[in-house]
Amino acid sequence: MNTVRVRLGDRSYPIYIQNESILESGRWIRKRIRSEDVLVVTDRRVAGLYGETVRMSLESAGFRTALFALRAGEHSKSLKSVSKIHTRLIQFGMQRDGLIVALGGGVIGDVAGFVASTYMRGIPFVQIPTTLLAQVDSSVGGKTGINHPLGKNLIGSFYQPNCVLIDPDTLTTLDERERYSGMAEVVKSALIADDRLFKVIETHWDDLVNAADNGLLTNVIARCCRIKADVVEKDETEQGLRRILNFGHTLGHAIEALGRFRQLKHGEAVAAGMRWAVWLSRRKGLLAEKESERILALLERFPVPETVRRFKPGDILEKIRLDKKQTVGGLHLVLLTRIGKAVVIKVKMEPWMIEQGWADVQP
Amino acid sequence: MNTVRVRLGDRSYPIYIQNESILESGRWIRKRIRSEDVLVVTDRRVAGLYGETVRMSLESAGFRTALFALRAGEHSKSLKSVSKIHTRLIQFGMQRDGLIVALGGGVIGDVAGFVASTYMRGIPFVQIPTTLLAQVDSSVGGKTGINHPLGKNLIGSFYQPNCVLIDPDTLTTLDERERYSGMAEVVKSALIADDRLFKVIETHWDDLVNAADNGLLTNVIARCCRIKADVVEKDETEQGLRRILNFGHTLGHAIEALGRFRQLKHGEAVAAGMRWAVWLSRRKGLLAEKESERILALLERFPVPETVRRFKPGDILEKIRLDKKQTVGGLHLVLLTRIGKAVVIKVKMEPWMIEQGWADVQP
Repeated sequence: MNTVRVRLGDRSYPIYIQNESILESGRWIRKRIRSEDVLVVTDRRVAGLYGETVRMSLESAGFRTALFALRAGEHSKSLKSVSKIHTRLIQFGMQRDGLIVALGGGVIGDVAGFVASTYMRGIPFVQIPTTLLAQVDSSVGGKTGINHPLGKNLIGSFYQPNCVLIDPDTLTTLDERERYSGMAEVVKSALIADDRLFKVIETHWDDLVNAADNGLLTNVIARCCRIKADVVEKDETEQGLRRILNFGHTLGHAIEALGRFRQLKHGEAVAAGMRWAVWLSRRKGLLAEKESERILALLERFPVPETVRRFKPGDILEKIRLDKKQTVGGLHLVLLTRIGKAVVIKVKMEPWMIEQGWADVQP
Repeated sequence: MNTVRVRLGDRSYPIYIQNESILESGRWIRKRIRSEDVLVVTDRRVAGLYGETVRMSLESAGFRTALFALRAGEHSKSLKSVSKIHTRLIQFGMQRDGLIVALGGGVIGDVAGFVASTYMRGIPFVQIPTTLLAQVDSSVGGKTGINHPLGKNLIGSFYQPNCVLIDPDTLTTLDERERYSGMAEVVKSALIADDRLFKVIETHWDDLVNAADNGLLTNVIARCCRIKADVVEKDETEQGLRRILNFGHTLGHAIEALGRFRQLKHGEAVAAGMRWAVWLSRRKGLLAEKESERILALLERFPVPETVRRFKPGDILEKIRLDKKQTVGGLHLVLLTRIGKAVVIKVKMEPWMIEQGWADVQP
C-alpha cells in the first residue's frame, strides 16, 4: 500500500493507493470512519462498473448504504444536482455523523464534496476517484464546486475529505481520450515540480497512457498526489503558491470555455495551454531552448482534437481577459524556468502573445 | 467602543459594539477589509431603515457597493435566495477578494453567510446584525445556513465573519415581539453561564425589553457575545460543549416546528422551552427549588402567545423524537444545576415528561 499523507492540521488525511483496493473499499474506509450510514454518490456509468462492488464492500464493513447516481457529464455539476442529493440524504435519514463517498471522476468528487461540506454544516467525506485526472489532481486538495449558469466552478468550498482511496486498476475501464486527459495533469505535475518524474514519463509514455504497467502507474499517481499535497499544505485556500498548479490552465480554461466545456476534455485544453505557456516561457527568456524543445516534444505526443486548431487568437485573448479580470499590473501567469520549476509572473497580456504563440505551438 | 474578540486561530475576529456605529460602518469595516467591491445583503424592511446609511458609509470609505434586498422573513432562507445572490455577485463582477455585508436579522446573516462561504469557495464576510436576537446570538459563532423543504437549517456551513459590527441603537426600531424574542436568548446566556448577568436582567428588565438604556444594553449584548464566544472557541463545529447553547431549544424547536415557523418567534419558542427545561432540571433533582422558582419568575415575564397553549404534549413529544433521532442511550438534553451552570445529560424521553411538565409550566 502506497500512502500519501496530506498534512493540514486537524484536516489532515491519507491518500491510499493500491491496485484492487476498490474491492476492499469498505475495510479501508472503516479504518477512518465510525459512521453508520453512507451515501455513495456516483454517475450512472461508474455505478454500472463499480457501484455494487463498493456498496457490498461497505455493507460487509458494517455500513448501511444507499447509492445516488447522477447523469454522467459536466452538466451534472449543478445546484440542481446538489439539491437532489440533499433531498436524498434527508430521506435516507442521514445525520451529522453520516458519510458521503464520492465514487467517480472529477465531476462527482466536486459535486459530492460540495454536498458533504453543506449538509448539516459539513459531514464526513471520502473520495474514490476512478479517472486518472481525478486520481492525480482533483481528488487532492479539497476544492469542491459546481457551475453557475453564468460561469464554471463559481460556487463551491474548500473542504478536505477524511481519506482518498485510489485504485489504479479502475483506469483500465477508461477510454483513451480520458486517459490522455489525465496524462496532461501528470505532465503538468512533473513540469512544475519534478524533473525526475518528467524523465519517467518520457521513458514510459506508452505504458502510462495505456495503463499497461500498474506498478509504474501506482508510483506515478503517488508522486503526483505528493506534489499536489506539498503545494496545498503550504497554501490550502489558494492565496498565492497554489497558483502554480494552474500551469497551462490560463489559456487552457479559455479554450475549454470557447468549446463550451463540451468540445474539449479538460486535459486536452490543458495540454494546449501548456504548449503555449512553454512557448511564452521561452520567449520571455525564462526557459532555455533545449528545455523548451524537450518539453514540446513530449507535449506533441498528445493527440490534438481538430477543434483546438479552430479557435481564433482574438477570441482566446478576450476569454482570458474576461476570465481572469486583468488588473493594472497584469495577469498572474505560471511560467517555467526549467523542467521541474515554475514561477508565477505578472504579465500584461498583449495580442501578439496569443497571435504569434498560438500559431507557433500548433503541432 | 466595546470589543469582544472571538479567538479561533486564523479565523479570529472582533465584534465591535457601539451606539450609532452603523453611521460609520464603512470606516469600521475598512479597518479590517481591503476589498474594493461590497455587496450589502439585507431584507426590504431593513433596507428601508438602514440600507442607504450603510451604503453611503461604505462608499465614503472607498468601497464600490451594490445592495441586494430579500423579502423579509423565514421563507427567504432558501436555496433560491442563495442562487439569486450568487447571480447578483457574478453580474456585479465580484471576485474572490470582494466582500459581503449581511445587514439585518438572523435570516439575513444565515443566508448571506452561506453565500459568502460558497461563492468562489469563500469570500470575506461582515455581519451588521440589527435585531437583538442576531446581536446576542446568531451573529456570533459562524453558523450559516438555509432551510430545505424537508427541514430547517439542514443546509449550511461553519464560516466565520471577518468582523461583526453591532449598533444597539438599531434595536429602537424593533417591535416589542422582536425585542422579547431576543431577550429569550439573553436570559438563556445568563442561565447557562453567568449568574451576575441574570441578576442584572432581573433588576433592569423593563429598561432592557424597552431598549431604554443604551449603555446598559451595550454591556449586556457584549456580555452575551462573550459567553457565546467562550463556548464557540472551545467547540467551533459543535462536537460537544457547544450543545449547552441549545438550552431551551429542544422543546423550543419542536413547538416552533409545530407552529410551522410562522406562528411563533424563535425566542417565544425558546422561552417556553426554557420553562420546561427548568421544570425537568428541578424534577430530576439537579436544580434547587429556590433557584427554579427564581428562574420561572423571570421567565413568566415573557408574554406567552395564545398558540403556545394549544400545542398537545403528544405532538410535541413526537416532534422532539423526529427532530433529534433519539438513540438507544436517549437524547442529549441541556439542563441546569444552578443559575449560570448548564450540563448536558442523556435523557430517555418519556411521555410523562412532556405531559406533566407541559401542563405545569404554563403560566
